[in-house]
Amino acid sequence: MPLDNIRTVTIAGAGLIGGSFALALRRAGFSGRILGVSSSHTLARARQLGVIDDGVSLEEGAARADLIYMAQPISRILDQLPALASHISPGALATDAGSTKRTIVETAERHFPRGAFLGGHPMAGKESRGVESADPSLFEGRTYILTPSRAADIELPAAREFISWLEKIGARVHVMNPEQHDTVVSLTSHLAQMASTALGKVVLDSVDSTNADYSTAGPGLLDMTRLAMSSYDVWKDIIATNHDSIVNALDAYIDLLKKLRDTLGSSETAAVFEDGARLARQIRSR
Amino acid sequence: MPLDNIRTVTIAGAGLIGGSFALALRRAGFSGRILGVSSSHTLARARQLGVIDDGVSLEEGAARADLIYMAQPISRILDQLPALASHISPGALATDAGSTKRTIVETAERHFPRGAFLGGHPMAGKESRGVESADPSLFEGRTYILTPSRAADIELPAAREFISWLEKIGARVHVMNPEQHDTVVSLTSHLAQMASTALGKVVLDSVDSTNADYSTAGPGLLDMTRLAMSSYDVWKDIIATNHDSIVNALDAYIDLLKKLRDTLGSSETAAVFEDGARLARQIRSR
Repeated sequence: MPLDNIRTVTIAGAGLIGGSFALALRRAGFSGRILGVSSSHTLARARQLGVIDDGVSLEEGAARADLIYMAQPISRILDQLPALASHISPGALATDAGSTKRTIVETAERHFPRGAFLGGHPMAGKESRGVESADPSLFEGRTYILTPSRAADIELPAAREFISWLEKIGARVHVMNPEQHDTVVSLTSHLAQMASTALGKVVLDSVDSTNADYSTAGPGLLDMTRLAMSSYDVWKDIIATNHDSIVNALDAYIDLLKKLRDTLGSSETAAVFEDGARLARQIRSR
Repeated sequence: MPLDNIRTVTIAGAGLIGGSFALALRRAGFSGRILGVSSSHTLARARQLGVIDDGVSLEEGAARADLIYMAQPISRILDQLPALASHISPGALATDAGSTKRTIVETAERHFPRGAFLGGHPMAGKESRGVESADPSLFEGRTYILTPSRAADIELPAAREFISWLEKIGARVHVMNPEQHDTVVSLTSHLAQMASTALGKVVLDSVDSTNADYSTAGPGLLDMTRLAMSSYDVWKDIIATNHDSIVNALDAYIDLLKKLRDTLGSSETAAVFEDGARLARQIRSR
C-alpha cells in the first residue's frame, strides 16, 4: 500500500519510546515532518538530537498531525486523551504506547470518533530512560501489540498505513483485544515484576535479620532482582489500571507457592520443575 | 606460607566444578599430581583435556592425596564420605563443593578425625555442565564459602594451605558456620529458584488456559525464568538437605506476596518497591 497519507507525525512524550519511534521512522524512510509535545527542556534536547523537527503545544500537534503517537506515562495519556480528541483532524489516527490497554481504550472510545484511536503496546524498552537513550533499532524484532476497540478497525486506511510503518521499523505486530492484553500481561509482565520486587524485599528483611552479608548472592539472585530496580512511578500507573488482573495473577502465584511448600521434595515438586522449565524453554524458542 | 605440603590432589567428580578447580590450580602454579575419581568415560575425557594426570579408584585417590576435592552431587558426597574417611592419609584434608552444608558437615564429623574435613561452597557455575565446560577462571572474583565444624579448624596447616590456593585461583573466601550458610542460601539462592520455577509454572498454566500465545513475553520474563531451566536432579538433593530452611523462606515470601496483594496500589506497595530496589542495588554494589 502507498505510505503517503501520513505526512506529519506528532510525538507526545519525546522520551525513550517516543524518541525511538521518531528515529526509527526516519531511518525507515519517513520524509514528512515530526513534531514533538513535551517539556521545553525535553523538546530542546530532542531537536538537538535530531529526533523532532519542532516542538509544539498538544493542541497544535493534534491539529497538524496525520499520526499522533502518545508515549507518555499512562496517567498522562488518560489526562490528555479528551483534549487530543477535540483537536484531532478528520482522517488522522491517534495511537499510544501505554503498558495497559483496557482503561486507555475505554477512555478513548468515549472521546474519539470511531477508528480515530488505536491502542498499542510495544514490548520494547531499555534500562535507561529519556530521549538521550532513544534508539532507531529499539523496535527491531520486538512484539508490538495493537488493541483495536473493534477488530475491523485495523483495516481502516490510517491504521493500515500505521501498521505498515511498524513493520518497516522491524516490529512484529500482534492484534488482541484490550481485556485479553491486560490479562496476559498481568501474568507475563506484571506478575514477574511483583515476584522480583517481593523477592528483593524478603531477602533484604531476612538476611538483614540474620546479620549476614550478601556474599552468597550469586548470578541467580542478580537475574531475579533486576526487575526489582524498576521505578514505582511507572508501576503505580500500571497497578491503577490493571489492579484486578494483577491480584488474580498474584493469587495464582501464591496458591502455587503454597502447593510447592506443602509438597516440597515430593514427585509433585519434580512435576512443577518440569513445567516451569517447559515455559522457560517455550518463551526462548520463539 | 609455603605451598608445598599439598603435592597430590584428588578430584572426586571431574565435572564442571571439579575440572575447573584442577585447571585453576594448574594455572596458579600447582606442579604436583592431580588424580581423578569419576566414571571411566569422564576420566578419559578429563585426561584428554589435561584436567587430570590419572584416573584412580576412590580408595586409591583418598590414600594418595594430600587434598581431596569432592565435587559430586550432594547425595553422592554423602554416600562416599565414610569410605573416603577410612582411606584418607594422616594430615591430608578433604573438602567438598556441595550447595548445602549442614548435612554434609554433620556426616563428615561422624567419620573424619577432627580437622580432616572442611566443607566448602563455591558461588560459581555455568549454564553448561561436564568436564568439557571446565574453565580455569571459573572461581575468579567469586565468593567461596568455607564452613568449618569449629571456627579454629581453618587455622590448621592443611586448611591454611588449601585457603592459600583458593586465594591464588582468585576466589574470595568467606567463613560461616554450616547452619548459617544453609539459612542464608535458602533465601539468596534456593528461594530465588523456587520463585522462578513457580513463576514459569503459573505462566504456563494460566496463559495456556487463556489460549493466548507468548508474544507478550519480554526480557523481564526471560530474566525471571532463567533459573527455572535448572535441572531437578540438582535441586532434589538441595531440597532433601535443606528442606526446613527452604520452607521457612517460602513462608516469608508467601506472606509478603499476600501483603502486596492485599494493599496493591497503596503507599505500602511503594514501600515494598523501595525496599526491593534497595536489595537489588546492594547486591550489585559489592
